[in-house]
Amino acid sequence: MQLSGKNILGNIESAEGKTTFYANNPATGEALEVAFIEATQAEVDKAVVLAEAAFELYRQKSGVERAEFLDTIAEELAQLESTLVARCTLETGLPEGRLKGELGRTTGQLRLFANLLREGSWVDARIDRANPDRTPVPKPDTRQMQIALGPVGVFGASNFPLAFSVAGGDTASALAAGCPVVVKAHPAHPGTSELVGKAIAKAAEDCNMPNGVFSLVQGAAIAVGQAIVRHPLIKAIGFTGSFRGGKALFDEAARRDEPIPVYAEMGSSNPVFMLPGVIAQNSETLATGLAGSVQLGVGQFCTNPGITIIQNSEHANKFEKELEKQITASESATMLTEAIQNNFASGLESLKSKNKVTSVGKGNQSEGGAQGIAEVLSTTASDFIADKEMEEEVFGPTTLLVKSNNKDEMLQIARNLNGHLTATVHGTPKDLEDYADLLKLLERKVGRLLINAFPTGVEVCHSMVHGGPFPATSDARMTSVGTAAITRFTRPICYQGFPDSLLPEALKEANPLNILRLEDGTYVMPK
Amino acid sequence: MQLSGKNILGNIESAEGKTTFYANNPATGEALEVAFIEATQAEVDKAVVLAEAAFELYRQKSGVERAEFLDTIAEELAQLESTLVARCTLETGLPEGRLKGELGRTTGQLRLFANLLREGSWVDARIDRANPDRTPVPKPDTRQMQIALGPVGVFGASNFPLAFSVAGGDTASALAAGCPVVVKAHPAHPGTSELVGKAIAKAAEDCNMPNGVFSLVQGAAIAVGQAIVRHPLIKAIGFTGSFRGGKALFDEAARRDEPIPVYAEMGSSNPVFMLPGVIAQNSETLATGLAGSVQLGVGQFCTNPGITIIQNSEHANKFEKELEKQITASESATMLTEAIQNNFASGLESLKSKNKVTSVGKGNQSEGGAQGIAEVLSTTASDFIADKEMEEEVFGPTTLLVKSNNKDEMLQIARNLNGHLTATVHGTPKDLEDYADLLKLLERKVGRLLINAFPTGVEVCHSMVHGGPFPATSDARMTSVGTAAITRFTRPICYQGFPDSLLPEALKEANPLNILRLEDGTYVMPK
Repeated sequence: MQLSGKNILGNIESAEGKTTFYANNPATGEALEVAFIEATQAEVDKAVVLAEAAFELYRQKSGVERAEFLDTIAEELAQLESTLVARCTLETGLPEGRLKGELGRTTGQLRLFANLLREGSWVDARIDRANPDRTPVPKPDTRQMQIALGPVGVFGASNFPLAFSVAGGDTASALAAGCPVVVKAHPAHPGTSELVGKAIAKAAEDCNMPNGVFSLVQGAAIAVGQAIVRHPLIKAIGFTGSFRGGKALFDEAARRDEPIPVYAEMGSSNPVFMLPGVIAQNSETLATGLAGSVQLGVGQFCTNPGITIIQNSEHANKFEKELEKQITASESATMLTEAIQNNFASGLESLKSKNKVTSVGKGNQSEGGAQGIAEVLSTTASDFIADKEMEEEVFGPTTLLVKSNNKDEMLQIARNLNGHLTATVHGTPKDLEDYADLLKLLERKVGRLLINAFPTGVEVCHSMVHGGPFPATSDARMTSVGTAAITRFTRPICYQGFPDSLLPEALKEANPLNILRLEDGTYVMPK
Repeated sequence: MQLSGKNILGNIESAEGKTTFYANNPATGEALEVAFIEATQAEVDKAVVLAEAAFELYRQKSGVERAEFLDTIAEELAQLESTLVARCTLETGLPEGRLKGELGRTTGQLRLFANLLREGSWVDARIDRANPDRTPVPKPDTRQMQIALGPVGVFGASNFPLAFSVAGGDTASALAAGCPVVVKAHPAHPGTSELVGKAIAKAAEDCNMPNGVFSLVQGAAIAVGQAIVRHPLIKAIGFTGSFRGGKALFDEAARRDEPIPVYAEMGSSNPVFMLPGVIAQNSETLATGLAGSVQLGVGQFCTNPGITIIQNSEHANKFEKELEKQITASESATMLTEAIQNNFASGLESLKSKNKVTSVGKGNQSEGGAQGIAEVLSTTASDFIADKEMEEEVFGPTTLLVKSNNKDEMLQIARNLNGHLTATVHGTPKDLEDYADLLKLLERKVGRLLINAFPTGVEVCHSMVHGGPFPATSDARMTSVGTAAITRFTRPICYQGFPDSLLPEALKEANPLNILRLEDGTYVMPK
């Protein structure tokens, strides 16, 4: 498939702007064909106006129709595998195997939402029937369900160029909810974005979806993104990226005449607590597991374990030695962009310059550009507690080993933590009993709490929470991964006194969609 | 019961401040005993710090324990009926019958949340079990449920001194969710607030709830409320009142280092569309119904029908005549405060000064202070469409009759509407068929859409939505009335790889709480 470098505004390609930019191959530093034409303010406006027009029709499509659309997108993407992976490897430096896996995750995610729509109960239907005889006033018939918010702006992430990008979780859940989507492509992988965008546009046409249900705008300048967030017809924003980027969008949205929700996933250092008993038993396995988790995707996972807290002991020393061995034997790999590699290197330098922080071990530099070399640092619990900066995410293959003297220091670290996406505790059954208070403290800090696992790898399922208290996200009440993500783009409405024929299918008396409903306070199951 | 005028900080009364204020009897203009002592910044801080300490214990109370607490509050309030109603009548000018009804609504609301907790399924438990044999990577065990956000600040409303105040819907839903509450009493009814606050504090003690689960601070100055919103340990805000007040809290919360959710219900003019067919059939009944709804509680309901849209016809003239008759025959009544009465009068004057607006009829002035005299105004659809100010709420017993020439003008009015709490359509079956597009337009503008009813009267039930798009509220995704209000104060958490013994009861394998759960994608009913 030939790239055009143009924006996709509903069913047309558009290139009115004069500013162009190129994708770079991080492995070589070379610019890649073609020139991408940055969207103008008028083009962003056109995309949003089309989305608003599409919304009136799209929100009235049945769940089954929307499910077919999502399945068709998945099908289009699956067919595009080789083209997509080839271009994406060039733009991101990520290996083919990883990208094939990520494509599978992306199509699986779309199909999961399609199945959610076919099942239909996600709308949370609630029915309270009338009682005309109630005194002193008759009881009305009231019925509630979730409906779509309106056009949604989505900002693709750099680190998952498929699963958190143009057809990623934000787009899939917004389209599932009934919201048209205007995606701002991440400038690090504009070609991948165009390929995916065209696949979605084709699926929309094949499924007779209204023109404007999906648009893609390109841009390296922040003005393009700002135009989306400021547009009065945009009703919600999905974003995955840095704290700075996410917080700027949040502030922009709060300043609008009509403030709108912003779901920004803004990074996390995902603390891992290794308890004394399990370190005594499994120091080698744990070190191997941690080293693997730290280096997964060259450390460019939102759930990378950036802080590891241990307690000083002979076994902890063995654990550290093993970790050092694994890391010093590791080979570097290409990071997503030169800028990310630079930030990673300077983040490490800034930590090491603290002189309370030392290097435990560093991997080997391979050939090629933008090499992320794994490195483990260490510090003491008291130094960590005294310096809040050490908690900040360093995006890349690293973890900061924090050595505590006792349980109290571990608890104090947990108590002082900011919000994170995840926290993890490794422990024997006895450890976990002895540290029940640690688990309780961590529960307040994160969206996902793991025992005896590693946080990298976010299962796409009904029960996942990829979210957590600020500053990990801008809205702890939601998740950006898993089926619960759909309610980010909906709101409840109550219909009072409606004749059955005017009610939406989900709320009609005969339950034609055969969904779970709360009827007069009792759950009534689908048949 | 003697009033102390003091703040209630957990289990002690406190009056460290120097500033005092009095409640006024709006019917006489006289100050009422006693002097209330405004909370200092230190007292607000103390209340919040106590709430945070209480949170650790309170959030771990079982649903049944929290249900007992809510039921005990309801019991305490019911026993206090005569004292409460006597004081509240003095402070608000509302008649005894109305306040007894409102107290019933308040205790009923507490008991409804207690029942929700006993049933238990509201936590939205989701379980996806492990599959260690899955390739390429094993599937982990993940389990999700809703948990409490943390200490909540609640701002009592003036217009429902019981049901939307100290023990109102915000407090009931936050306590139900597992969040301690710090209430800022509305300065128009501080005595009522103190009585209710003491009842809650007694219930907390009787139920062995942790000290600080509830506090009440008094204050007429905005600094007291600001101190609550700005406090870093406060994690969410509930508010019912004016747009200016609610938007100021929203902005304050968005500016915090850690932004927090603000649920502000900020007013609405609740447009009512009377379609041609039903006006031809029932002009008198509709006029009587509307006149009653307009005057309910001296027009001081959030859901007061402030705009009524009709189509010119002979029958519409009859409707208007009947409305005029009803209104001109009406007797005024005491409004909540002199300030509210002044705002009402100046709101009407400002509309009438437009010279595109005329008075249809005005009621009679009775004896006593702060009299709200009902008045109906009218204008044309084209004038209404041309002047967005006419859509703004005038809080009091009034409605603006908007006369349109045809269906198109009605649709244009609907299309141009801001967000409101409710919209209503009166119509015959044929009308409703002919105006299906009107219903679809209104669906996007409101939280509750009514057919052939009046919007005043908000049923407390599972399916109610008392909310709606901005500027009606600051968060259209939520309701402040009904059981769905509980999730305003919770967030999801995912437990991964937890041994059964460490899981919360709601997620344990054996389902000991016997609640509805989504297990491996299938709903499993309570037994």
